[in-house]
Amino acid sequence: MPGPRPAPEPTASEAAALRLAVDAAERVRGTTSPNPPVGAVILDESGAVVGVGATSPVGGPHAEVMALRAAGSRARGGTAVVTLEPCNHQGRTGPCALALIEAGVSRVLFAVDDPHPQAAGGAQTLRSAGVDVLSGFGARDVELGPLRAWLHRQRTGRSHVTWKFAASLDGRSAAADGTSQWITGPEARARVHRERAKLDAIVVGTGTVLADDPWLTARTPDGGLADHQPVRVVVGEREIPASARVLDDAAPTLVLRTRDPLEVVAALADLPDVLLEGGPHLAGAFLEAGLVDRILAFLSPVLLGAGAAAVEDAGVTNIAQALRFHRESVETLGPDLLLSLTPGDRGVGAEDENEDNSTNN
Amino acid sequence: MPGPRPAPEPTASEAAALRLAVDAAERVRGTTSPNPPVGAVILDESGAVVGVGATSPVGGPHAEVMALRAAGSRARGGTAVVTLEPCNHQGRTGPCALALIEAGVSRVLFAVDDPHPQAAGGAQTLRSAGVDVLSGFGARDVELGPLRAWLHRQRTGRSHVTWKFAASLDGRSAAADGTSQWITGPEARARVHRERAKLDAIVVGTGTVLADDPWLTARTPDGGLADHQPVRVVVGEREIPASARVLDDAAPTLVLRTRDPLEVVAALADLPDVLLEGGPHLAGAFLEAGLVDRILAFLSPVLLGAGAAAVEDAGVTNIAQALRFHRESVETLGPDLLLSLTPGDRGVGAEDENEDNSTNN
Ligand SMILES: NC(=O)c1ccc[n+]([C@@H]2O[C@H](COP(=O)([O-])OP(=O)(O)OC[C@H]3O[C@@H](n4cnc5c(N)ncnc54)[C@H](OP(=O)(O)O)[C@@H]3O)[C@@H](O)[C@H]2O)c1
Ligand SMILES: NC(=O)c1ccc[n+]([C@@H]2O[C@H](COP(=O)([O-])OP(=O)(O)OC[C@H]3O[C@@H](n4cnc5c(N)ncnc54)[C@H](OP(=O)(O)O)[C@@H]3O)[C@@H](O)[C@H]2O)c1
Repeated sequence: MPGPRPAPEPTASEAAALRLAVDAAERVRGTTSPNPPVGAVILDESGAVVGVGATSPVGGPHAEVMALRAAGSRARGGTAVVTLEPCNHQGRTGPCALALIEAGVSRVLFAVDDPHPQAAGGAQTLRSAGVDVLSGFGARDVELGPLRAWLHRQRTGRSHVTWKFAASLDGRSAAADGTSQWITGPEARARVHRERAKLDAIVVGTGTVLADDPWLTARTPDGGLADHQPVRVVVGEREIPASARVLDDAAPTLVLRTRDPLEVVAALADLPDVLLEGGPHLAGAFLEAGLVDRILAFLSPVLLGAGAAAVEDAGVTNIAQALRFHRESVETLGPDLLLSLTPGDRGVGAEDENEDNSTNN
Repeated sequence: MPGPRPAPEPTASEAAALRLAVDAAERVRGTTSPNPPVGAVILDESGAVVGVGATSPVGGPHAEVMALRAAGSRARGGTAVVTLEPCNHQGRTGPCALALIEAGVSRVLFAVDDPHPQAAGGAQTLRSAGVDVLSGFGARDVELGPLRAWLHRQRTGRSHVTWKFAASLDGRSAAADGTSQWITGPEARARVHRERAKLDAIVVGTGTVLADDPWLTARTPDGGLADHQPVRVVVGEREIPASARVLDDAAPTLVLRTRDPLEVVAALADLPDVLLEGGPHLAGAFLEAGLVDRILAFLSPVLLGAGAAAVEDAGVTNIAQALRFHRESVETLGPDLLLSLTPGDRGVGAEDENEDNSTNN
């Protein structure tokens, strides 16, 4: 058996295969827990796509096995492009590394090393069998994309919390009379519903339930219920009426009669991908507790000049305590902007002096 | 003399010359009133840049003449790229169209037709002299760039008002205790000072003067006063103290003891490029009156959760009355975003229905 040797650089077909694999993983995100949503693509010897696969619901085959099944004998001498290191442990369908070796695949590119101690070692098994192996291929796209919440959970032991809000340019999430339909446009709203269908949980405060009586379900563009529904979670000490829409049969609902964000996160430990939808007070409490791992800010190019703010009481009283974030991406969605942000350093410091004493100098 | 014939398509050197001409115009913006800030570039027969010019302060030569002086005899058989149609009227330096013909330029490309009845007709004069003429070349860059305020004034008879604000992601322009230094980063602040040095007037309400006592001067990066200072304008019925910094000698100051935005705009008729710097109440009044022609929103990726809003009382009570804007551009400035927006249709209408009744459906 030949020893490890440097794998050749990725080709254009392999880069295209990575995109297909990421898309395949995105399509099953939310349906694979506790397994990670993985995508795999098999290319034949000539670089043509002969199989695409993604993780099945728990108990079913992994992405590589699904892709190999589709490829059949055309996998021999071909290449596998996978979003996560092929597993090495004896699951229900056997280790994926072994399946790739048995199928005669001669080259494997994957994005992210498996952080799971039981499953890791697949790359080594493949190399030992003489397979060309390249790791870290497309790592950023996968880490910030389909594997984001799963990796966060593996690394921190905690669920990944995204706070999503929609606001006007002047930071209001409703007009003076409480109306808010619609601050953002159809593109942004469709995005929110597509996102919901991939989540494990949606969290709101009692204030939002009492004010808006929302369903908090994931819907398809025609208004029907999406196949996968996240668990609905209502947080706060007040009782919510038995007639509240979040208590209907459309999806499971968890009522957490607490005001402690840490307790909420602990209760959601088995739901790795959590969306905090607000309102402003619950968001403020999560932000103050440092429990927001990503912000998705949908900003609409409208001004209101009055009405509820997107966030209230985040524990900030002066500008030096401002909660700072890093811009991960900016996207336009029709008329609106979608900013994705991750937590930065807390506080600004006063190192940046100037002879003037206002922003309006 | 040959009649008009279609001018050949712009070359890559001509496109580069247009960028130079726009930059030259930008550099003199704010110093040419009542003349427009124009840039001109002369290319020799081979396409090499042999002259760059911009409008001199009033009474001095126009951009084309400045560029022709630099080019000398190398202009013969060459090309002129100008941001505005060369003028046709007998000014202090003679019509620019004639100067171009006399210099032997064989091709002229310009961005924007001259809307000024006295000056227009330059293109016709050039064509009649057998010069290749192409108009509309880079029109959008020039209309939204150096000639923006001047064109607005020519077309509407009113000054162009830009409302600039800096806010956190949740739309606050100061923290709970009033501190706001600095919401945005150094890149954004430097941009604001560079912009100020090109303006005709900066407008604030008495509230901002009384709260912050700002200087409202344009400063260079080393903190010194820029060569050109806009007129400082304070609006409101309250008296401001004689010791207020806006009343110092660094720049002229106009105190308008009114609350009527229309009166303000009328008083500034001879100052075509006006920056409204706030605060929130004066901005709300201008927005409500429909007197904001552009918004420059500097959005910082911070959250405050408390503190003054960027705009108050814009006459909006429900979401259907929201003031809507079109996105003209989005730029990143270090950590911050700069959105440029122009007014859209007032009100959203309710055509966009859905079975749910909240943004949190
Ligand atoms: N545009 C958007 O993105 C968006 C999203 C959601 C909501 N909203 C709007 O927000 C408004 C409701 O505002 P809201 O602030 O009342 O909603 P909220 O944040 O959903 O609920 C606040 C309530 O949550 C409970 N809570 C639990 N933990 C808390 C903590 N650590 N700190 C503070 N409160 C805690 C408290 O109620 P108990 O007394 O029961 O403990 C509190 O009154 C609605 O009008 C809704 O339309 C907008
Ligand atoms: N971050 C930013 O971009 C920014 C920019 C500027 C200011 N600020 C902040 O804004 C705060 C000041 O807020 P502010 O609202 O008092 O400032 P403002 O808008 O500058 O001043 C408001 C005052 O302007 C006068 N006024 C004139 N015409 C008016 C009209 N049509 N409607 C209402 N008022 C009119 C009124 O005073 P009279 O009674 O005298 O008529 C009113 O009290 C300061 O803390 C400052 O730091 C922030």
